[in-house]
Amino acid sequence: MTSSHEHIQPLELIDRRVRFLDQTLLPAQEIYVETDDEHVIADALRRLAIRGAPLIGIAAAYGVVLAINRLTVDANRSAQFENACTLLSSTRPTAVNLVWSLQRLRKVFERYRTSSLEDLQQSLRAEALAIHWEDAEMCRAIGEHGAALLPAPASVLTHCNTGRLATGGKGTALGIIETAWELRRISHVYIDETRPLLQGARLTAWELGKLEIPATLVVDSAAGFLMQQGLVNAVVVGADRIAANGDVANKVGTYSLATLAQHHRIPLYVAAPTSTIDFETASGGLIPIEQRAQSEVVSFFDNTVEGIDVYNPAFDVTPHEMIAAIITEAGVIERPTIESMAALRSKISKHAGGKPVGALS
Amino acid sequence: MTSSHEHIQPLELIDRRVRFLDQTLLPAQEIYVETDDEHVIADALRRLAIRGAPLIGIAAAYGVVLAINRLTVDANRSAQFENACTLLSSTRPTAVNLVWSLQRLRKVFERYRTSSLEDLQQSLRAEALAIHWEDAEMCRAIGEHGAALLPAPASVLTHCNTGRLATGGKGTALGIIETAWELRRISHVYIDETRPLLQGARLTAWELGKLEIPATLVVDSAAGFLMQQGLVNAVVVGADRIAANGDVANKVGTYSLATLAQHHRIPLYVAAPTSTIDFETASGGLIPIEQRAQSEVVSFFDNTVEGIDVYNPAFDVTPHEMIAAIITEAGVIERPTIESMAALRSKISKHAGGKPVGALS
Repeated sequence: MTSSHEHIQPLELIDRRVRFLDQTLLPAQEIYVETDDEHVIADALRRLAIRGAPLIGIAAAYGVVLAINRLTVDANRSAQFENACTLLSSTRPTAVNLVWSLQRLRKVFERYRTSSLEDLQQSLRAEALAIHWEDAEMCRAIGEHGAALLPAPASVLTHCNTGRLATGGKGTALGIIETAWELRRISHVYIDETRPLLQGARLTAWELGKLEIPATLVVDSAAGFLMQQGLVNAVVVGADRIAANGDVANKVGTYSLATLAQHHRIPLYVAAPTSTIDFETASGGLIPIEQRAQSEVVSFFDNTVEGIDVYNPAFDVTPHEMIAAIITEAGVIERPTIESMAALRSKISKHAGGKPVGALS
Repeated sequence: MTSSHEHIQPLELIDRRVRFLDQTLLPAQEIYVETDDEHVIADALRRLAIRGAPLIGIAAAYGVVLAINRLTVDANRSAQFENACTLLSSTRPTAVNLVWSLQRLRKVFERYRTSSLEDLQQSLRAEALAIHWEDAEMCRAIGEHGAALLPAPASVLTHCNTGRLATGGKGTALGIIETAWELRRISHVYIDETRPLLQGARLTAWELGKLEIPATLVVDSAAGFLMQQGLVNAVVVGADRIAANGDVANKVGTYSLATLAQHHRIPLYVAAPTSTIDFETASGGLIPIEQRAQSEVVSFFDNTVEGIDVYNPAFDVTPHEMIAAIITEAGVIERPTIESMAALRSKISKHAGGKPVGALS
């Protein structure tokens, strides 16, 4: 992959090796790992050294490529392929992108299984690179659609990490911010630190620092104060899953931001690929909210208190009425409704590429 | 001081010694320090081992008592008194309670300076205990006034620490919660962790654990989700300073909670002694917002990012229209306005005790 910002390259296939950035060490240390062993990739996925739904899918594809690269002409190709898929898919059992990515490679594997080893290796490598490239293109399109929507100059608040560290390209919400910055439409970015896992403070801050985009970190609960002081004129976030009516499940705190933005008449934009839209789920109330470990909240400071419970919902749901626009690679849905979302569905069905409509990212 | 909860006793004068809880070690360790040396008290104030505006004032008074206790009959009483006041007031230069408390002791010192040493020591000790006792009484009255206002059963969200660890009694907002719990009017308490210094996660959680009040810790940005799910029917917070029109400056995040509460039609109650009301400041917009060190936000995790600024406002201002009631020891002001606040001022002027109206806590 080429990039105008090669200094943020969390994952690359270079000849017969994969090079990745260990995100668990950010922002204190920027350590890259090179490997030709899919077990190292699996381990990186398991311990969140590689994270972000789209990037997980790409990494799994590269892991399969490494496994097939190691084959000798008389080895059992199917066994090697199945072992690699089992290994990689077990790392993040709920990551839909990972399953989807491995399914794409499986189709190619089945088509070329009896071809020459070189053809098989070449074909899988090409498919993995295509998955990566398509994701980068999707980010580029979202960035362009979104940048045109922002007020100019925009002083943007963002939440969590939705950038180069999470995708195969410039990111979704952060891709919009980067594109708008290049177009000189951004004056400043405020970053929510995003408790409990601090993706904003650790990852988004690191990315914006690298991109030299002027940015300021705040604690999550300062968002209201920023808006009250007139320091922010747009909120841009990503999405984990979007219901058929445009309700958005995203990192916990997004709904609080939406409520604050509505009160201050500031637009809230949601950036996500169309693969994030789950047309089988009618509304946000039907999206299950993952409850994560209590330790995520209390382990940072060793502040467990006996007798006190911890409630750690990973996501919340923002009703579609509170969203100024959903920005996808296929276009923008302003003030989303069940009707405008259905119209988007028709549009993407006509142009459907490799990604099944309704798959989650 | 006696208490129905002697297991939470952050500061006591016992005979000729002061015993205090080192709050910097909570919740992991519960370590008490006993001393007859005012320098140990000064050090504890400086490093926040003793914190919370009312408790700071009480600790400073006890520090003076310790200094005067050590006097011999032929020593220079004035020098000893002045040195102790200078030492103690330098520890937290902006703490108005500390100054106010030392002024009360100064009046007593001047009245008894030429009396017998025993009389001087006895009088200062009595005044310090009175400051402590009056604060406990103030908490008791706030607790009773507030508990009657809460919906029953109440599922309350609170922010920061406003309890026994911060005052000479059962606390302000947390005093209301404790009182309502004793009256069986509380079903559950949700605690905002309160970034950046985690007073909720470290101190409020510890207090509620000790009191065996059922409580759950959440990250600050989960507040919207809790309200959306119908898990909370009241928000109770303290105040750092209240303007003449009822606008409230309090720990950053309070304004976000107020906005969320308004959106969900949940009442937000502010608990504070009348000494917190600054009748000389017309409205909240005139209250200066303290900007605190960037390191408070990034030092917990060593996540400083080069080129990224940190904005760390300690407080925010909630407009009086968003407040269901201000609960003081002198009574409750529902839906505060400039008129109802002025009426409170007349009421407390008539019954004015030792505390000057307009002093900050």
